[in-house]
Amino acid sequence: MQTILILGAGKSSTYLIDYLMKSAGAKNRKIIVADISEKTAADKIKRNPFASAVSINVSDPKERNSLIQKSDLVISMLPAFLHPMIAEDCLALGKHFFTASYESDELRKLEPEIKAKNLLFLNECGLDPGIDHMSAMKILENEKSKGNEIISFKSFCGGVLAPESEDNPWKYKFTWNPRNVVLAGQGVSRYIQNGQLKYIPYHKLFGRTEKVSFDEAGEFDGYPNRDSLRYRKIYGLENIPTMLRGTLRRSGFCQAWNILVQLGMTDDSFQMDFPEGISYRGFLNSFLASHPSKTVEEKLQEYLPEIDQDIISKFEWLGLFSEKPLTQLNGSPAAILQHILEEKWQLSPKDKDMVVLQHQFEIKGAFGDKEIISSLVCKGEDQEYTAMAKTVGLPLAIAVDLFLEGKIKSRGLQIPVQKEFFDPILDALGKEGIVFEEIERPKI
Amino acid sequence: MQTILILGAGKSSTYLIDYLMKSAGAKNRKIIVADISEKTAADKIKRNPFASAVSINVSDPKERNSLIQKSDLVISMLPAFLHPMIAEDCLALGKHFFTASYESDELRKLEPEIKAKNLLFLNECGLDPGIDHMSAMKILENEKSKGNEIISFKSFCGGVLAPESEDNPWKYKFTWNPRNVVLAGQGVSRYIQNGQLKYIPYHKLFGRTEKVSFDEAGEFDGYPNRDSLRYRKIYGLENIPTMLRGTLRRSGFCQAWNILVQLGMTDDSFQMDFPEGISYRGFLNSFLASHPSKTVEEKLQEYLPEIDQDIISKFEWLGLFSEKPLTQLNGSPAAILQHILEEKWQLSPKDKDMVVLQHQFEIKGAFGDKEIISSLVCKGEDQEYTAMAKTVGLPLAIAVDLFLEGKIKSRGLQIPVQKEFFDPILDALGKEGIVFEEIERPKI
Repeated sequence: MQTILILGAGKSSTYLIDYLMKSAGAKNRKIIVADISEKTAADKIKRNPFASAVSINVSDPKERNSLIQKSDLVISMLPAFLHPMIAEDCLALGKHFFTASYESDELRKLEPEIKAKNLLFLNECGLDPGIDHMSAMKILENEKSKGNEIISFKSFCGGVLAPESEDNPWKYKFTWNPRNVVLAGQGVSRYIQNGQLKYIPYHKLFGRTEKVSFDEAGEFDGYPNRDSLRYRKIYGLENIPTMLRGTLRRSGFCQAWNILVQLGMTDDSFQMDFPEGISYRGFLNSFLASHPSKTVEEKLQEYLPEIDQDIISKFEWLGLFSEKPLTQLNGSPAAILQHILEEKWQLSPKDKDMVVLQHQFEIKGAFGDKEIISSLVCKGEDQEYTAMAKTVGLPLAIAVDLFLEGKIKSRGLQIPVQKEFFDPILDALGKEGIVFEEIERPKI
Repeated sequence: MQTILILGAGKSSTYLIDYLMKSAGAKNRKIIVADISEKTAADKIKRNPFASAVSINVSDPKERNSLIQKSDLVISMLPAFLHPMIAEDCLALGKHFFTASYESDELRKLEPEIKAKNLLFLNECGLDPGIDHMSAMKILENEKSKGNEIISFKSFCGGVLAPESEDNPWKYKFTWNPRNVVLAGQGVSRYIQNGQLKYIPYHKLFGRTEKVSFDEAGEFDGYPNRDSLRYRKIYGLENIPTMLRGTLRRSGFCQAWNILVQLGMTDDSFQMDFPEGISYRGFLNSFLASHPSKTVEEKLQEYLPEIDQDIISKFEWLGLFSEKPLTQLNGSPAAILQHILEEKWQLSPKDKDMVVLQHQFEIKGAFGDKEIISSLVCKGEDQEYTAMAKTVGLPLAIAVDLFLEGKIKSRGLQIPVQKEFFDPILDALGKEGIVFEEIERPKI
C-alpha cells in the first residue's frame, strides 16, 4: 500500500484530492490530507474510506516528521515560502516531493542530495507554471523534430471571471490570492523581441499591453510578466529572437489598473497612517497634489489625462470618490487598496471563474513561415470546483498518479518539460476536459 | 592640549580642515587627519605644524582604536554607513563624535550610553541636514516667541552649478556623489499640505515640482524629498498644516530627468547584461517596445508624448540617440546611466558649484498673515574650494570649535536644533560669508 500525504486542503486542493481519491481503492493507496484546520481537511475527503483528515501545525517539526514518515510521497499545497522546509524534511526522510510552485534557489541547493537518494522532487506542475510548460514543450518538440525553427514564442495566461459572472465595471473579481493580484507585475519585466532585450519598469507595465483573443472567451489584454528571458534555456530556445510570457486580463482592466499604479496605490514599500474618519475620497486625494479650489475629480483628470469615462465608472463603482469612511487606516497603499477591493471583488456563490491560456508561435519551416495559436479556456463549475483549482490541481494529481504507477522514471529535481512527463500528463488532462484548441496557418 | 581626529580627507573636508587648522596654534590644539590615502590627507594639511596626516584602513579595529584613543573628539567625514562603527568605538573609548550625516537608528540605540558617559554625539551638522535645521529653527523660535503661529513651512535645498558654469543643455554636472544623484528621490515622498497627508510615488516625483526663485541665482524647480512628515516633531511643529522639504534643480532639469525615470533608466533593482557592441541608442531602445518600422526617436516620442525639443536636445547631448558603443554592458540601468552621465557631467577645472537653500514660511500673527522667505546662495571658488565643501564642512568645524571652547554644554545624542547650537554656529557662519537673505512681507 502506498501512502500520499497532501499538505494544505485549501481551495486549490479540491480537484487534486478528488482525483487521487477516485482511484485510491483500486490502486491500493492511502491518502492523508493535512491542514491547519482538521475540519477543512475532513470536508475535502468527504468520508472517502481510503482517505483520512488530520490537523497539522506545520511549524512544529515533530508533527511534520511524524506525518511525512508515514508517507511515500508528499504533495505540498502550502504557501510557496514553506516549500523549502517541507522539501528538507522529505529529503531527510527519503520521501518524494511534488508542488505546483516555481522551483526555488533553496530547492536547487538540494539537487545533488535529491539525486543521490534517488528521489523525485517535481515542481512547476500546476497551471502556470505547469500546463503552460507542458503544452508549449509538446508543440516545440514536434516542430523541432520536423527541423523547423521557432522564431517567436509568446505565451499568455490569466485567471479571470467566466463571462457570465462579469457583472461589475471591472469585469474582475478575486479568483485567487488578492495580495498577489494587487502586487502583480512589481519589479521589472523583461523579454526579447526581434533579438532585442526589452525592459519595462513596473510603472509602465499596464500601459504596454497587447490584445489577445479567444474564439470562445473574447478579447483580453496581455502584459509581459517578470523574466521571460530565463525561459529560453528551460525550453531549449536559447537563440530565439522573440520570447515573451504575459498575464491576461479582460480588455479594459489594465487601462484602469494602470491609473491605480500611476497614483501609487499599489505601492507596498511604505506604511500609511491615516487619521480616523478619513474617507475613500480622502485616500484617493492623498495621492493628488493640493489645490485651493479644484475637486478631487478635476485634479485626477488633470494629473492623468489618459483617464476616460470608462475608468471613471470603474473608480466610482469602487467608491473611490465617495465620502464612505476608510476602515483600514494603516498599512501600505497596496494593503489599504486590497482591503477596498476585497469588499467589492468578492465572488458571489453563483460566480464562476475561468482560466485562459494562449501560446502564439511563429515558425520557419521548409514550406515557409507559419503560426500556431494554441488556446485553452477552462471554466469553473462553482466556487468550490473552480477552473483555477482544476488547472492547478489536476496536473499535479496526474503526475503523482503516473509516478506511483511507475510510468515516470525520472529522478532528481525536475520540472515537467521532458516528454516522459508532458505526454502522459497532457493525455490524462484531455480526458478531464482540459484540451487546447490549435490553429495552424501560414504567416502572412 | 586637545586632539581632534578627522576621519576622511575627501573633497568635503577641505574647509573643515582649514577652519580648524587656522586657530589650532592659538587654541593649543592638535589635528590628526586620517584617510585611506596618506597623500590625500597630507595634501589637505599643507604642512601646518599643528596637524598631522596619517593613513588608515577603517576596517581594521586596531588602527581605528589606536587613533581614536589618542584623540579627544572624532569628526567622521566617512561614508554614512560607516558612522555606527566609528560611533561605537568612540563610545567604548569615551570620545565625542561629530558628523554632518543623518542621525541613524543605530546611533539612537546608543543614546542612553552616550548620555551615561556624558559625551556629545552631534549629527546633522552640515548643510542639509545642518544649516537648513539651524536657519529654520532661528526663524521659528523667533516667531513663536512673539506668539505667532506657523501655518506653512516649505524648505528647498540643492547642490547645483554656478550659473557661469552652466555650459551644457542640462545646466548640470556632478558636484557631489554621482550615484546619489542618479538614485535621488527613490522610495516614496511624503508631506502634508493644508492638513492633508500627501504621497508621491517615485515615478511621479519629477513631474510634481514647484518653481522656487532666487533674486541672485534665478529660477529652480523643487521636488518633494522623502519624508517631510518626520520633521514636524524635530522642529516642534506637530500640528502645522503644511510642511514640505524639497530638492532644487535648475529649471528644465526635472522635466528631462523625468523622462529617464519614466523609461526605467534610473532603476537600480535589477541587472542588465548587454551583448558586446550595443550602442547608446541600443541601450535607450531596450526601454522601448519593438516596432517593425519606427525609429527610436519616433517610438520615444509616441511612448512619452510630453517630450519636447528641449528634452530631445538634452538626450542628444548625452549621445543617447547615437551609435556610440556602450562601454559598461553590465549592471543596473542606474549604474549604466551613471556611467554615461559621469563622462558628460564631469566638472572642468574652471567650473564652480553653487548651493541654494530657501525656506518659505507662512505665519499667522497678531497683525495678519505674513510670509518670510529666507534664502542662501553660496558659490564655490574652484573645484577644491567648493560651495558644497564650504556649507557641509564649516558648520561642523564651527560646532567642534565652540564645543572645545566650552561654549556648547549639551551632551548626549544631538542634532543642532537647540539655541545653544544654532545661535553661535549661524553667527560664525555669517563671518565666513554664509548669510541668509530674508524677505518678510504681508501675505496677500
